[in-house]
Amino acid sequence: MSDTSRIGSFRVDLQPVGRRAELGPGQTLLDATRAAGVELVSLCSGEGWCHSCLVRAVSGLVSPPSLVEKAALSPEQLAAGFRLACETVPLSDVKVDIPPESLTTQQRLSIEGQDVAVKADPLVTPLDVTLAPPTSHDLRADATRLSDACATLGHAPVEICSEVLRTLSDQLRSQGWQARLAVRDHEGSLKDAKAPRELAGKSGQGAVGPAPRFAPQGASPDKVVAVLAPGDRLFGLAVDISTTKLAAYLVDLATSHTVAKTGEMNPQIGYGEDVISRIGYCAEHADGRIVLQARLVETLNTLATQLCHEAGATQLQIVDAVAVGNTAMHHLFAGLPVDQLGRAPYVAAVSDPLDLRASDLGLVLAPGASVQLPANIAGFVGADHVAMALATGAWEETDRCVVALDIGTNTEVTLTKGGRIWCCSCASGPAFEGAHIQDGMRAAPGAIERVQIGEDGKPHLKTIGDQPPVGICGSGILDAVSELLRAGIINRKGAFREGAPGVSAEEGVYQYTLAPAETTGHGRSVVVNRKDINEVQLAKAAIRTGVDVLLHEAGASWEEIEEFIIAGAFGTYLDVESSMNIGMFPALPMERFRQVGNAAGAGARQILVSASRRCAAATLARKVTYVELTVHREFTRRFLKALYLSS
Amino acid sequence: MSDTSRIGSFRVDLQPVGRRAELGPGQTLLDATRAAGVELVSLCSGEGWCHSCLVRAVSGLVSPPSLVEKAALSPEQLAAGFRLACETVPLSDVKVDIPPESLTTQQRLSIEGQDVAVKADPLVTPLDVTLAPPTSHDLRADATRLSDACATLGHAPVEICSEVLRTLSDQLRSQGWQARLAVRDHEGSLKDAKAPRELAGKSGQGAVGPAPRFAPQGASPDKVVAVLAPGDRLFGLAVDISTTKLAAYLVDLATSHTVAKTGEMNPQIGYGEDVISRIGYCAEHADGRIVLQARLVETLNTLATQLCHEAGATQLQIVDAVAVGNTAMHHLFAGLPVDQLGRAPYVAAVSDPLDLRASDLGLVLAPGASVQLPANIAGFVGADHVAMALATGAWEETDRCVVALDIGTNTEVTLTKGGRIWCCSCASGPAFEGAHIQDGMRAAPGAIERVQIGEDGKPHLKTIGDQPPVGICGSGILDAVSELLRAGIINRKGAFREGAPGVSAEEGVYQYTLAPAETTGHGRSVVVNRKDINEVQLAKAAIRTGVDVLLHEAGASWEEIEEFIIAGAFGTYLDVESSMNIGMFPALPMERFRQVGNAAGAGARQILVSASRRCAAATLARKVTYVELTVHREFTRRFLKALYLSS
Repeated sequence: MSDTSRIGSFRVDLQPVGRRAELGPGQTLLDATRAAGVELVSLCSGEGWCHSCLVRAVSGLVSPPSLVEKAALSPEQLAAGFRLACETVPLSDVKVDIPPESLTTQQRLSIEGQDVAVKADPLVTPLDVTLAPPTSHDLRADATRLSDACATLGHAPVEICSEVLRTLSDQLRSQGWQARLAVRDHEGSLKDAKAPRELAGKSGQGAVGPAPRFAPQGASPDKVVAVLAPGDRLFGLAVDISTTKLAAYLVDLATSHTVAKTGEMNPQIGYGEDVISRIGYCAEHADGRIVLQARLVETLNTLATQLCHEAGATQLQIVDAVAVGNTAMHHLFAGLPVDQLGRAPYVAAVSDPLDLRASDLGLVLAPGASVQLPANIAGFVGADHVAMALATGAWEETDRCVVALDIGTNTEVTLTKGGRIWCCSCASGPAFEGAHIQDGMRAAPGAIERVQIGEDGKPHLKTIGDQPPVGICGSGILDAVSELLRAGIINRKGAFREGAPGVSAEEGVYQYTLAPAETTGHGRSVVVNRKDINEVQLAKAAIRTGVDVLLHEAGASWEEIEEFIIAGAFGTYLDVESSMNIGMFPALPMERFRQVGNAAGAGARQILVSASRRCAAATLARKVTYVELTVHREFTRRFLKALYLSS
Repeated sequence: MSDTSRIGSFRVDLQPVGRRAELGPGQTLLDATRAAGVELVSLCSGEGWCHSCLVRAVSGLVSPPSLVEKAALSPEQLAAGFRLACETVPLSDVKVDIPPESLTTQQRLSIEGQDVAVKADPLVTPLDVTLAPPTSHDLRADATRLSDACATLGHAPVEICSEVLRTLSDQLRSQGWQARLAVRDHEGSLKDAKAPRELAGKSGQGAVGPAPRFAPQGASPDKVVAVLAPGDRLFGLAVDISTTKLAAYLVDLATSHTVAKTGEMNPQIGYGEDVISRIGYCAEHADGRIVLQARLVETLNTLATQLCHEAGATQLQIVDAVAVGNTAMHHLFAGLPVDQLGRAPYVAAVSDPLDLRASDLGLVLAPGASVQLPANIAGFVGADHVAMALATGAWEETDRCVVALDIGTNTEVTLTKGGRIWCCSCASGPAFEGAHIQDGMRAAPGAIERVQIGEDGKPHLKTIGDQPPVGICGSGILDAVSELLRAGIINRKGAFREGAPGVSAEEGVYQYTLAPAETTGHGRSVVVNRKDINEVQLAKAAIRTGVDVLLHEAGASWEEIEEFIIAGAFGTYLDVESSMNIGMFPALPMERFRQVGNAAGAGARQILVSASRRCAAATLARKVTYVELTVHREFTRRFLKALYLSS
């Protein structure tokens, strides 16, 4: 245990979650996270053997690394400030950064993930103007006066959004003819003419004389999407709309810094748990699409309000937005029909990038704000996958062989090799979302999320929130099947070995008891049965077949995979060794795996803050060769083989 | 009188009103118009002395010109088929064209006017496509499939409007993957690349392979604004929104032919008779702007429905629209603030051309239809004046000196000379709209619209609808003042000559009785009093000063005016000689005057059907030098002089 020879209490500032805790003498950073209600992954409950409560001490004094830490962490990690929270005691007020992989509940809302490491090059930039008020000798219209002032500052011709025109006259007068404009570069990075932009941000007096108000032939003018008060910051909103969860990020467009983030369940769940049932709802209800869109937008507006409150801003300062999601979520958000997504051959209404007006969607942002919905690839490979692939950057390194996947009811897999990209969607089913599993549940408090089976055949469990177990979530069932296999309790076909420890039969179906009734939150036992194992087999076979078919298309073997990227909330929590052990992932060296958290959200933020990344996303989507598994000649053979539980 | 030696009855086809009448033996064309309910101007009720019922026999046999006609009409007019309706008897079925100036009530809805004599070059054109349906081996999104098909036809890259995307998937399937697209040329005539357009209209199979989906750098793609059934015609809607009246025209975009037209009172009248009172309404009511816009749009939707019904089309076939009106109507239609229009120095919120989405305004047209609101010039010189100037074409003939005006509460005047254009707005007041006049009224049935005073000092009256007089409208009060002056009953200062015929005093105010109580529709006499004459003096002084100040700016004398164009409903009805007699117009030879009816509506239709005319309108507006009369050094002196009633 750690040094306790200290007096007084210290303040611990936990980032990026933005929470604080006061610690008494001898208390550890793990105590601080508990006091602050921030759930760290901690299988051993602070005993020091699970090594999962990794944090980084950013500033302030802390106890020197313990022997446990020296064994668990590499010298590089220690040098970079990484510590185990359960072993580290503050010696002053400290600031601690919690990496996404160390968080439980917080991360379950999918709002963490790789940070945006791209240079701010937003489509919308500020331009400060001061206008000469109108007189009887200078009767230019308010809009003309504003355009002329922009021209005087050397800015290319601007067009003022019609929504902005509705408030412009009153605003200019109430702000004393001074304003910060939010100007959208209409062509984004497609345009080379960046020179006039260098003058942006300067303040100057509007010219009285005539100025060129019409753009040169063929060029589209930049657009004024908001008129703000002098000094107002410009923000962007990135949202990741998954079937079950929403993640929303507020980004400062000048710095590309994420100033606030939040998450919420997707309110459409009430109309159908999965994509197919929501498509069904729309088919059965004339106003289905409208209702689903309205519920979603309602919640997104609430999230935007929260984010702005946190950042001390107003929603009118959100001048740009990006939304990613699977193709069905994309369509339901955009108000597009989904009927054809539910019928063979399952085609999207739209796959190219879509720029919609926020106000058309019902989003309350700056009056002229757009929402970009980046390109999707197919009916079951959405913009969230494109954003994920973008965020990982794998496809931009043309000489490497990289696999990236995001596991869900449909698992999207991308393979990059030799500058080409292949992609497919695997019908992996909802097993890892807790559905079709006897005691399955979502990743909520009381869900078993980690399973180890000891030498004695007895299970060691970790539940979310360290509550008494009530069920088992995706990462738990994956661990369970892997551990049952490793312990020899089930065989490669998924069949139970009769008489093995913990195994019993319930109505003729074999099962293994993870938690006996007396230990659970609801007084019933929590088990894994033969059917559950079968569901996992179907899921893992689908995923592995997807990877294998793409390797086949690329003419590569699995050993050639140099990086294997696992994105998404579930991908963050799953145990890679368990996944390899049952053969869901190829048996690569551990260091080739990378769990990147909500990379879709990170990609969305890249697209939001950088015109060139936006361009890159569109290019990426166009470069992808989509492989339809259901009609692929290799599919059936490989799928049947992949049903076996083995690496 | 005319030849009656004929038997049987004939059918008379009255155009452009589209009405028919059966005539018995010996009946005249005037009888035909009465039978058809088409009101011709006819002061003498068919006695042959007023020469106002001018029509043109287009086809069929009619009686030869009478002596009356030979005296009244020039040989050129007779050669061109012009006749007096009261003198002309059909000798077969005939087709007759009624020029706007010969119509009364019909024209009062301001829906006539110069026809559109420009070549059809619309911004929105049809493109017929046939697509290959999707299969498991061709999973392109519906929108991509459509874009690719356009590219295969040689069309430049297209973008599909978001509103169109919402119905596209269902439409393609229900129409068997065939469609007529309405494609909007994004840059209009600014773009030279017309070559691909020549392929439009051809039908072809969509390509399966990839096609370039992104426009070349800097260029904006054309837009699909509607997906129609194969063979559907494309229509455009032109509306002229004046303070009191609305005129709406449905135009076939392929031919530039006006297929239907209609008119209605502006429903905003209930919220204020004139512009200033409506601005006041908006200042006093938080939702004032929204209410006024909603009422207007409601009525325009009704008119569009009527027009479509008449043309056998649906509103979804209206793929483009143009709306002109004065600056206040422009702002209230576009949802722009009007507060600053009502406060010195009276500037517009927007003066450049504005392209708004029809759906944003609440107009029910094709899903992606735009509404262009052409440029206005100043707070009191609107796009209707620009459209009028465009329609007259005067400004394009650089070597002539032309005046064009439209008389209303504000009278807009344009002067063209040597390729330059000057323009001003005169506060002529509502006298010619019947307001501030003791017995004033709108141009409605029973209104005295023509006055002649005989040698005996007795009035000869013409009322609208030949009803018993109930009041006096604009053209009537103008005639009355002119005739009173000519007859010596009032002097140049507008004062009554005591003891002159018909003159009496009522509560100390002198007046002239136009219609004694026993002859009127309401049993009270209809008079013109000293105050009425003063109102006319103020109005005519304002108009004449506007013309004179513009001449001063152009360095021209009034004798140099080669053409004097009078537009608008009132301008159609006013008597030019009366106007010259009181000095409202300069005393030019009669042939220099041209009464063009609702030229604003004609200009709007030109802008609608022709990309180059749309461009020309924008150029015209930019070329104009606006002269603010209230601060012009010449104004007061000239205005005081112009108050005298003399040419």
